[in-house]
Amino acid sequence: MAWLRPCWPRCAALRWRPGGAAWAPQLGKAPGVAPRGPWHPHGGRGLRTASPGLGEVPLTSERYRVRRLPFSRLSPQDVAFFQRLLPGRALTEPAALEPCNVDWLRSVRGSSTLLLKPQTTAEVSQVLRYCSERNLAVNPQGGNTGLVGGSVPVFDEIILSTVLMNRIISFDTVSGILVCQAGCILERLNEYLEQQGFIMPLDLGAKGSCHIGGNVATNAGGLRLLRYGSLRGTVLGLEVVLADGTVLDCLASLRKDNTGYDLKQLFIGSEGTLGVITAVSILCPQKPKAVNLAFLGCQNFSQVLETFTTCRAMLGEILSAYEFMDEKCMELVEKHLKLSCPVRDSHFYVLIETSGSNSTHDEEKLNSFLEQAMTSGLVTDGTVATDDKKIKMLWSLRERITEALTHDGCVYKYDISLPVGKLYDLVTDMRARLGQSAKNVVGYGHLGDGNLHLNITAESYSHSLLDAIEPFVYEWTARYNGSISAEHGLGFKKKQFIQYSKPSEAIFLMQRFKAMLDPKGILNPYKTLPSSS
Amino acid sequence: MAWLRPCWPRCAALRWRPGGAAWAPQLGKAPGVAPRGPWHPHGGRGLRTASPGLGEVPLTSERYRVRRLPFSRLSPQDVAFFQRLLPGRALTEPAALEPCNVDWLRSVRGSSTLLLKPQTTAEVSQVLRYCSERNLAVNPQGGNTGLVGGSVPVFDEIILSTVLMNRIISFDTVSGILVCQAGCILERLNEYLEQQGFIMPLDLGAKGSCHIGGNVATNAGGLRLLRYGSLRGTVLGLEVVLADGTVLDCLASLRKDNTGYDLKQLFIGSEGTLGVITAVSILCPQKPKAVNLAFLGCQNFSQVLETFTTCRAMLGEILSAYEFMDEKCMELVEKHLKLSCPVRDSHFYVLIETSGSNSTHDEEKLNSFLEQAMTSGLVTDGTVATDDKKIKMLWSLRERITEALTHDGCVYKYDISLPVGKLYDLVTDMRARLGQSAKNVVGYGHLGDGNLHLNITAESYSHSLLDAIEPFVYEWTARYNGSISAEHGLGFKKKQFIQYSKPSEAIFLMQRFKAMLDPKGILNPYKTLPSSS
Repeated sequence: MAWLRPCWPRCAALRWRPGGAAWAPQLGKAPGVAPRGPWHPHGGRGLRTASPGLGEVPLTSERYRVRRLPFSRLSPQDVAFFQRLLPGRALTEPAALEPCNVDWLRSVRGSSTLLLKPQTTAEVSQVLRYCSERNLAVNPQGGNTGLVGGSVPVFDEIILSTVLMNRIISFDTVSGILVCQAGCILERLNEYLEQQGFIMPLDLGAKGSCHIGGNVATNAGGLRLLRYGSLRGTVLGLEVVLADGTVLDCLASLRKDNTGYDLKQLFIGSEGTLGVITAVSILCPQKPKAVNLAFLGCQNFSQVLETFTTCRAMLGEILSAYEFMDEKCMELVEKHLKLSCPVRDSHFYVLIETSGSNSTHDEEKLNSFLEQAMTSGLVTDGTVATDDKKIKMLWSLRERITEALTHDGCVYKYDISLPVGKLYDLVTDMRARLGQSAKNVVGYGHLGDGNLHLNITAESYSHSLLDAIEPFVYEWTARYNGSISAEHGLGFKKKQFIQYSKPSEAIFLMQRFKAMLDPKGILNPYKTLPSSS
Repeated sequence: MAWLRPCWPRCAALRWRPGGAAWAPQLGKAPGVAPRGPWHPHGGRGLRTASPGLGEVPLTSERYRVRRLPFSRLSPQDVAFFQRLLPGRALTEPAALEPCNVDWLRSVRGSSTLLLKPQTTAEVSQVLRYCSERNLAVNPQGGNTGLVGGSVPVFDEIILSTVLMNRIISFDTVSGILVCQAGCILERLNEYLEQQGFIMPLDLGAKGSCHIGGNVATNAGGLRLLRYGSLRGTVLGLEVVLADGTVLDCLASLRKDNTGYDLKQLFIGSEGTLGVITAVSILCPQKPKAVNLAFLGCQNFSQVLETFTTCRAMLGEILSAYEFMDEKCMELVEKHLKLSCPVRDSHFYVLIETSGSNSTHDEEKLNSFLEQAMTSGLVTDGTVATDDKKIKMLWSLRERITEALTHDGCVYKYDISLPVGKLYDLVTDMRARLGQSAKNVVGYGHLGDGNLHLNITAESYSHSLLDAIEPFVYEWTARYNGSISAEHGLGFKKKQFIQYSKPSEAIFLMQRFKAMLDPKGILNPYKTLPSSS
């Protein structure tokens, strides 16, 4: 087929990995391609990127005018207790605390004066028992790669880092079940598993920095969800320390266990507000032997949807990703990053990945699908890649959209779940609504999961533009029973919008769970749920 | 390969479906192959089968000497209220109540005098609000196919049946998301989906009778779990009515939603003790285009395990079942059911199913694997089947073991999860322990899921035999961090054994959740959790 050109060789850029090696949240080294744009302190709405110089991130408490809850203040006696408990691992030096007080987006900043680095569950338990008795607030922290301000303190919460809890406890090569401490870095786990013919069931841009405990605490989604499902199914067990120091050992390594309520599920996605995850048991899939990528152009969103149903039927069990992006995304990637798209003149682009156990079979399936998609006119142009380097190049077109957007001005970011048929209507409606007041309104995301990343750029921050976007974007999402946070969570920045996706009965019940498990509210306060008062 | 004989043509029996068409729990028609054996009233231990004549099932309250909790007694005014609320659907006739008061195994019996058949969530809400105010206990009931006494009343609880809540609300052919009422029968849903190229992500022997709401309430496992994962991952949303009548609408149809705690998970597997599930949103996979089955013989359990790792590596994404059975199982199936096994002289048998989107590819993969397994000596004999009839015949060898066991005498049944490497050691140890006091000790099950069905038969019931089995079986399971109920739940019969699989901190927390969500304890009392007092 003439349209199946070899993957173009011009772009040698690697996949963009926020929080990855070049992107580790080390504030001492400002990354060269950090999110850009001026600061727009405005009451917690949207997820806007910005990149001020070092030391310029305003305190969250001041910017958002949050009232500190009546927790105790850290005393010298408290610090002495923690230094006895964790010798050399209870840090008070500003240089040690600074990177843990500011989030990766550099959008929120706490003022904690104590960083604790326990190595064992028993130490976490002792820390929390003490904090509970003393009424000291605690901010559990993994890799600090979250995007909604959930991973850093708002005031002076003690930072409880899992950075030294990075031990692999066991891996069973028959069952594929991995048990490890919460502070293991996702990419390290994946490397460990690959040596034994397995992979982690999740993959994220932030894999080089994020901790598996944080992934579970935020119910991270990512690139492999279409194929391997969510953490709700792959996490088999958790060890959690409750607010009062009680250790809840539900660290089962079993695929099936129907003995009572599945308590661990409450902690998955609770963003550290109900307990501190200290260890994880997770089911890992076999490492695929063959990976193929197709990058295709469609003329309208209906064709994007129909291409999805066609490829799901024809690729079946080997389909591992179905991503889409609109032509505006591609323009920005080409303009700001000088990447070149091998497929042109399409209104939409889709990226289809297959992962399977037999390269010949997989290529046959892919070619059959592509022929069908071309013959029926669903797809007008495309290219395929089978080797690692070209696959990475094609992926970069999709993965570097976020980066390209940060070069386009002030960015208003939304992470929305919708019924897949309605996914792009929100972009169209938003574009029509904003007209010339926005520079660009773009849509891309994990179509296979019904997850839209809606981004709006403008030359500079405008309060009236924000008012045109919100609450419209949330109301629109709620009208179609969507979720206002598909995979990022609520954290500090989105907690007040929960009612757009959850009924009041559910929010009330969540608040009761919180009150029951953490009656003093010391765990990650000011996050996830609106105040119950 | 010489050993790959065509599937033998002698057995024409269809798959045995407990609770299926021929097995519907209609007490007026005693099924011809019902579980056999005398009644052995003994304090709730094990799961023993029996099949007394009609009307002979003793009352649970008398046999187990349970003390009735201080719920109100149903008054004529109460009955009048429900008959006004549900005209013609609030039944008090003994003939209507009898099949709902006794479980499918005919092992427990309640004495309810009122059967309610709501059609809508609003009606369920009104029923529960009234019951809550009046302190009337309620037994939610789906298809009544449970095996641990969880689905029928213990005393005079009002039976709240979902039998008339059988409406499909929506199905999205792009996303594969089905939304339906809780009373839809699993097999009907599967038939509906097959017409549209999809299947349900779970399959059970009881599919012809069980309700999807009951499946979710008990977190049913079954035959497709290896491939499609558990309901924890595939159930996307639930609508639940709480004990006080509050409707909790978490019926999202989204693959991703990270807005707050995932409340629905608490109700999955809670066996009707925390709320009544009224509607379900579930992600359904594509219907596979090709299915193959291989039935193989291995000489020892190590080979069964190694064959599993080999086939998982070589069949990869198309592996959909890996079941095993020991030679004793096969002897019983041949002796009692006159089935003939096409593979002989092996100590273990494995059944491997593939489901994929391309029959040529799948057969190639399967043949490569089989050649490897034979060449390396893992497998000593085997046969394969690709057409529906022969596949059903081969499946019947595995699926009819339960039936064969009931013909072997008094059966002591255990449903255990273990780390897969330890799976058969329990059978060996039990056999050695019981010696001549047991007739047969057999092991089979879902090896791919680490799920062992351990069954012990004897000519007649013996208290001393039971004492030799329990608590040994539970202690053994606990020693290897297994689960004493892999997929059946705890219900009435196993609730007192939960401590073998869950730590006291977890049980205490479960009791607090129960107390919070159902403070009067009216929902499915006497089930799932040991009393907190």
